[in-house]
Order: sequence, then C-alpha cells, then structure tokens
Amino acid sequence: MQNFDYQTPTRLIFGKGVIAKLPGVMTQFGKKILLAYGSGSIKKLKVESLKLKDGSSTKATNLYDLTKELLKGYEIIELPDIQPNPKYDPSVLDGVRLCKEHKIDVILAVGGGSVLNCSKAIAAGACYDGDPWDLISYKVKAKAALPIVDIITLAATGSEYDSGGVISRTETNDKIGYIDRHLYPAVSFLDPTYTFTVNKKQTAAGIADAMNHVMEQYFVEDATLLNDGFCESMFRSLMVNGRKCLENPEDYTARAEMMLACTYGCNGILALGNSQSGWPCHGIEHALSAYYDITHGWGLAIITPRWMKHILNERTLPRFVKYGINVFNIDKNLDKWEIANKAIDETYKFFESIGIPMHLRDLGIDESRVDEMSHHIAVNEGLDQAYAPLTEKDIAEIITASL
Amino acid sequence: MQNFDYQTPTRLIFGKGVIAKLPGVMTQFGKKILLAYGSGSIKKLKVESLKLKDGSSTKATNLYDLTKELLKGYEIIELPDIQPNPKYDPSVLDGVRLCKEHKIDVILAVGGGSVLNCSKAIAAGACYDGDPWDLISYKVKAKAALPIVDIITLAATGSEYDSGGVISRTETNDKIGYIDRHLYPAVSFLDPTYTFTVNKKQTAAGIADAMNHVMEQYFVEDATLLNDGFCESMFRSLMVNGRKCLENPEDYTARAEMMLACTYGCNGILALGNSQSGWPCHGIEHALSAYYDITHGWGLAIITPRWMKHILNERTLPRFVKYGINVFNIDKNLDKWEIANKAIDETYKFFESIGIPMHLRDLGIDESRVDEMSHHIAVNEGLDQAYAPLTEKDIAEIITASL
Repeated sequence: MQNFDYQTPTRLIFGKGVIAKLPGVMTQFGKKILLAYGSGSIKKLKVESLKLKDGSSTKATNLYDLTKELLKGYEIIELPDIQPNPKYDPSVLDGVRLCKEHKIDVILAVGGGSVLNCSKAIAAGACYDGDPWDLISYKVKAKAALPIVDIITLAATGSEYDSGGVISRTETNDKIGYIDRHLYPAVSFLDPTYTFTVNKKQTAAGIADAMNHVMEQYFVEDATLLNDGFCESMFRSLMVNGRKCLENPEDYTARAEMMLACTYGCNGILALGNSQSGWPCHGIEHALSAYYDITHGWGLAIITPRWMKHILNERTLPRFVKYGINVFNIDKNLDKWEIANKAIDETYKFFESIGIPMHLRDLGIDESRVDEMSHHIAVNEGLDQAYAPLTEKDIAEIITASL
Repeated sequence: MQNFDYQTPTRLIFGKGVIAKLPGVMTQFGKKILLAYGSGSIKKLKVESLKLKDGSSTKATNLYDLTKELLKGYEIIELPDIQPNPKYDPSVLDGVRLCKEHKIDVILAVGGGSVLNCSKAIAAGACYDGDPWDLISYKVKAKAALPIVDIITLAATGSEYDSGGVISRTETNDKIGYIDRHLYPAVSFLDPTYTFTVNKKQTAAGIADAMNHVMEQYFVEDATLLNDGFCESMFRSLMVNGRKCLENPEDYTARAEMMLACTYGCNGILALGNSQSGWPCHGIEHALSAYYDITHGWGLAIITPRWMKHILNERTLPRFVKYGINVFNIDKNLDKWEIANKAIDETYKFFESIGIPMHLRDLGIDESRVDEMSHHIAVNEGLDQAYAPLTEKDIAEIITASL
C-alpha cells in the first residue's frame, strides 16, 4: 500500500431544491461574483419556484434567472459562452481579465465540467501576475486561487469534487489536465433535477466519462481489496443507473445516484493507497479532443476497450478476471483468458448499448494524423510510466484499432 | 435518495514514516500545544529513526519522545491518562482548564479513539465560557473549537476522519456521542506501523467497532446501489484484513488497509443520500459501556447478531439477503429466510472467530440492571425512530438475549 497525503475540503450540497441555500452560502465570500456559464442552456433549463427562508417564493422560471434572483444585492459580472473542451483563448484569458478588472471575490460556475474546469483555471490566473499559461503548463506553481462555487447541470466529470481542470489551447493542440490543491471548489451544489433535460448523447458521454475515471484507478499494479470493492460498486452503479437515466430522463433516483457517482470519479477517494495507473485512456483521448474537438466521453468510450485488448497479457490478466467476475458477473469457473476477453467485450457492448458510436471514424477522425497525435501523446503524457507502459507505437496501434 | 449537506475537511497523512511531516504541519497553528494521550502506551511504542528534511535523523526510540523531539521549540502542556470510554470528569474538565490557563493554540491527540474523542470535547469546551457539558449535551451549540491534530495508534473508531466524539459521565451513566462540524480534526497522521503492537483483544475490538459502523449505515430503509457496494467492500476488507492482522500483527499491508477502512467508518462517505438507521447498536452499547465500562467494540460485537435476529422480519428480509449474498457469498438460490439467518450466524461466528467473548456475562454484566439500562436507552437514544423501531421492551429483549 502506498503512502498518501489527502484532503478534499469541498462542501457538497446535494438534492432537489438545495439551491435555496445559495444566498446563505455566498455571503462568506464577498460581494463581487464572476458568473461563468456555457452556451446558454442554463437560460433554457426550467426550474420550479422555491420557498425561501423569509417565507417568500422565487419567481424565476429558468436556472439563469433563478441564480440572479437569489443573488440580488451582489454585483455580478458575466462570462458566458464557455465551450466544451474549454479554451485557454478566449475563455480563460477573458475570465482572468474580468476578475482583475472588477476585483472579483468569488467565481460562480453554472453548468457542466467544462464551465467548472475553465473557472478553475480562471480562479488561479486571477491571483497570478503573469501569463496564466505558466500555471496551467506547470511552469509556475499557484500560490492562491479565488474561491469557486458551482451549480452542476451535467453528471460526468467529477470536477465539482476535485482539484483539477482540463484546458485546451487550440494553436498548439495542447489539452492539459491542470491540477492544484487551490482548485477544489469551496461549495458544489448538486441538484439532480437539473440533469433531467440532458440529452441522450450527453448523458451517455457522462456515463462513459465517469466509467473511465474509475477504470483509470482500477487497472493498477497494487490495489487494496477495499478500493477494488469501491470501484466495482461505481462501475455497477454507473451502468445500472446510467441505463435508467437514458430510458427515463426524469427518473430522480437514477439521476441522483448517477450524479453522486460521477462526483466521486476524480478526487482520489476510490483509490487511496493504490499505485498509479498513469491515466492512459485520458492521455490518449486528450490528444484526440485537442486535434479534433470531439466529445470527451465518447472518445474515452471508443478508446477504452481497444486499450484493454492491447494491454491484456499474463501480467494484467488477474485484474481483468476480477473486473469480469465482479462487474459483469461472468462465471468465475471459465478459463481466465475467456473471462478477461468477455469482460472487454462486455465493456464495448455496454458503451455501444447506450448509443455511443464506437469508431473514431464516426466522429470524423481518420488515419491521417494518427502518427502526429501518437507522437504528441508519447512526448507529453508520460505513458511509458503507466501501469501497462505504452510506447509511441503502442499508442498508434490503439488509436488505429479505434478508427 | 435523501438530500444531504456534506463536508469532511480533514487532511489525512497516511503511511509509514509520515510523522516526519509533523513539524511542518504544526507551524500553521501556533506555538502552544496541548499534548493529549492515554495511559502511557505511547511511551512504550517503539519507533524507528526518521530522516528529516534538513538531513538530520531523529534519536527518539518511542512515539512519545519522538513527538516531543519533532516539536522542539513549541511550548507543550501535557494531558496524560485519558481512559478508554473517556470521562467528562476528570479528563475533559482538566483539558479545558489547561487550554484556558495556558492559552493553548492547538490540541495534539496521540493515541486511539478515546484520546481523540476526549480531545474533541476539550477543543470545543476551550472556546466556550460556560460548563462544557452544555455543549456535549446539546444544550448549547459550539461556535468554535481549537484545531485538533492527531496521531493514531489504534484502528477502530474513525474519529480521525469525523466530527464526533463519545464522552461518558459516570455519575449519571451518560455516554453521549457529541457531534459538531467544528470537531473534524485539521490533520490526522495515520502510520500503520504504530498499530503493530496493538494486542489481539484491542485489534478484535477495533474490527468489531468498524464493522458495526458500517452495519449502522447499511441496514436502512433507503440505500443506493452505490453505497451498498461501498459498505459491502468495507465488510469484506475488514474481515479479510482483520483476520490477517490477528494472525500476523506486523503484516503492514493488512494493518494499513484495516487502518484506512476504519477511517471511513463514521464520516458519512459510505452512505451519502441513504436514509438514517438511528444507529441502534451504538445506542444500546453506549448504555452498557456507561453502566459497566466495557470495551466498546466487544459490546457492539455481542449486541449486533442479537439485534439482527430481533429485527429480522418480512420488511427487513431483503437487506439481510443482500448482506448474506454479497458479504458472505451465501448461495443466492437458497430460500431467502435461510440466507438471512445464515448471514446472521456468519456474523456471530466471525466475531467469535476473532476471539471476542460473545456473551455479556463474560464481561461481568448480568440481568440485574437490564430494565434500568433499557429504560435509560429508550428515553435517551430515540430508537423508536430507528430503521427497525425499538421499544423499551425490544431493547430489554435484545440485551437479555445477549447476556
């Protein structure tokens, strides 16, 4: 078992209607808020009237208006239009500039993981005098960050309970997972009803994203019995509840459990004391997204079973056998290799069954840039140190098998 | 799924030799430390020399001396002799007095759950002008508490990662679980090698304590698939690793996993969104300990299977069936009642197999005060609101069956 130094200070406020606590929560941070959001879906997201502490009821009918109604009396500066795979330029740069110009006290991120990831980079950049890319590229270590509060509308990334954010820089095809202890949100509001209107494509992408977060922590050299059980529970819960969310988008219990499961994806609690995997599928997918701007969860779903096939060998076999038996209920009396291969096939079939196109060609990616991407990944992602070490050739083979 | 508002801000520093970080960690809190510990076992607990940042090596050969060596330059006031089932008088009162007299900045608790629980009550009492019992008995809500750092030498209570502490008041036979958000330790040091010398009795009591913490969260009306998997993983890990710790007390991996599993016992992470159980076995055991000062983990182990038998009925059956299949691998094709009864028998046999005397008589408890204790529990513990509601008569029957 590995030593670790662990802390997740984020406060989770979870459940239907919890946004009523927003005004009380925000008082601790100051009066000037940067309200960060995406392409405007929060203006379409319908909300019910809330009964407030003072006996009054809210009038807003969408989440954007509700947020502003609840924050009457605060000075709110807006940063709209944050895109999926959030961009350094313009989103991070614009956000940092606004924070400095308006002396922002706190960032309120309303949306999914992209909005929150972008807000994290802004929070650090706002407390740094130089180019924010110095921080994101780990040239300079952040000394502070603005506090972040988020209201989550998409179950997927787990950014609401971790200290990381992924930022893309288009001109260099960089997509970097920026992790720093200052980036834990102070408070995350998680209301499962806000995910009722997430469409099938994004719901499936969220399931795949969260599933892969668990895989990146499960397929390691040295894992505790305890963590294996936690991870296997995550897999089963995400598959069962994910399917229910797709069948009935307004199934509160399924949306709620899926939202909570996603929240645990990346903050480490599932794997304390385990050795590191090197997060190989994320390493590969980040390049695909950086070069082709594809949906992250889809990219992961496509890569994952091909990566599994590629790394299955005598050494990794026991992990796949355990995965097959405990996650897919495969008969433990079968031949070990048969169990492992069945487990990989079941993984593929699950992603396919939730509507994910299982070939990169379906997303517009062909062989033309495979070598270039593989080189970029091999140079930047350190996958030669992964649980199953990957060379540039391995990476090219995995991507090619995924086309 | 239930709404929740959750935060565990504690930093866990885990693994062999991590105490080397103590001097760096303590600098943030001030110069005056209350060093709280028990009957002196930390003076017998042997430690190896540590290599420090400045290149020097520590000279101390026991944990007490090592702690003081690492904190050279700090003003240290000592509170020794904190007993198991820590007492309001003298320990809490003495600690509060010392904190006020010496204007203590931070409490350093070195020992097991009793030392830490006592330190939590002291931390709150030190920041309150009135009688500390006002806080513990929930008459007054704490507005602040001194920061607490702990070094854990016994895997059991999970106090190192939660906001509760159990305090006993002898003259009134009260044993109260005092919970307040100010009571999370700031930092918990967990070095599994410090538990190598824990004897078989205390090791078994720790296993039983942690097992029961999970049961109190697993046997509920409304549980998520996710949490069930987390809890079942805890049960399996505690049983497998607990047995290994007893067989080979210096098995680092087993001691480490057991220590980590215990840490998750009471901070809620295993059951976010579940409905409440009312913690019935703890409610009953607290009275047994308060009246007879028995070992908490032993009391729980004895009560648990009798409580299970007592509450098994048509409504609770599915929970016991799930428990039996997923925790004890009982054949799922058997009759449901048979599975449930087997699961309860397996629970009993497990506790027996790790050396716990399974009758209260073995601990010196007879029928003479059963009615008095049952009345005390019925009045004070609210078990009529538990998952399986218990009347005074039910409580008396469970205790009588445990004699």
